[in-house]
Amino acid sequence: MTDIDRLSRQLAFSLELDKLKTILRQTLLADSSRRENDAEHSWHVAMMAVLLAEYAPEGADPLRASRMLLFHDVVEIDAGDTFIHDDKGNADKAEREQAAADRLYGLLPADQAESLRALWQEYEDRATPTAKFADALDRLQPIMNNVATQGGTWKSNHVTADKVLKLVERIRAGAPALGTYAENLVHEAVRKGYLPC
Amino acid sequence: MTDIDRLSRQLAFSLELDKLKTILRQTLLADSSRRENDAEHSWHVAMMAVLLAEYAPEGADPLRASRMLLFHDVVEIDAGDTFIHDDKGNADKAEREQAAADRLYGLLPADQAESLRALWQEYEDRATPTAKFADALDRLQPIMNNVATQGGTWKSNHVTADKVLKLVERIRAGAPALGTYAENLVHEAVRKGYLPC
Repeated sequence: MTDIDRLSRQLAFSLELDKLKTILRQTLLADSSRRENDAEHSWHVAMMAVLLAEYAPEGADPLRASRMLLFHDVVEIDAGDTFIHDDKGNADKAEREQAAADRLYGLLPADQAESLRALWQEYEDRATPTAKFADALDRLQPIMNNVATQGGTWKSNHVTADKVLKLVERIRAGAPALGTYAENLVHEAVRKGYLPC
Repeated sequence: MTDIDRLSRQLAFSLELDKLKTILRQTLLADSSRRENDAEHSWHVAMMAVLLAEYAPEGADPLRASRMLLFHDVVEIDAGDTFIHDDKGNADKAEREQAAADRLYGLLPADQAESLRALWQEYEDRATPTAKFADALDRLQPIMNNVATQGGTWKSNHVTADKVLKLVERIRAGAPALGTYAENLVHEAVRKGYLPC
């Protein structure tokens, strides 16, 4: 592969990723004006990894978590966003996302396809402290937006506090102080009537 | 400041930054469906800093450039997006953006306000190899989207090739190989009638 072929493949991948701006999530923007898309969500959580680096547990690399979060939803270009409380959609999510990773990372030169796919797989496996920290931020950001929108898509999707408190345990596993904060936020949301018990 | 006050300020800043998703730029998405917003643009260029790290010049830190790009447009929450070819809007841009930085970074604990504002100021000054690399990506991404949309907002804003070629020189200054690629892209856009001479 010539240098120019290599750069062309990298930029073709970069342009393909523009499509992430059209994949809508369940979460509303904090001003309730519309649903959030995957690209702006990815920006938000990657930025939070820098901002909240001090809450990462021992052994986590917050800057690696930030890179992981930049790419964590790329597979949704083909696989779509699966709502976290959609049990049916989650049944074949892994299969759909692996096929998407084959195609999308396959656009890149082989060495880079391998390293970026490994970064995504590390996130998917949630086994390392870095991936758990990234997952904690990916769970915290929508809770904050749902509280800011007085229940937002919790209400429209009939989500209950026990389901959100299960996600809070994932936040705690990746960043204990953020887990405690999120738990208080959920209790406050219940008290205010934003989230049914 | 207690630990909980510190975290509350950091998360208030994070939630305030949600507004970046509502600040529209001139550039269209690659599918021409609508204008791009600052949050998704910031995601795109921060991701490109990771993807294209190998083209950074000596002395540049591409991962620092990625963090810089995550935050580079935050001031536009208050100051708005100023189109790069709008001479009138650019006359008081620096002043508006410094006032925005005072308010926005002022939401954070003092140590973090200082370090993140310094990161933004480094980007604004375009004096370090890292800031020049970040600027190169910030210039390259809209050129790619304008070519993908067959002229996109170049046409609607009456932008000519000589103006875009000036931006190409900024790309070359921050990442020589990307400058050469962008120059070829601009010449191709002229040949195809996407961009008038």
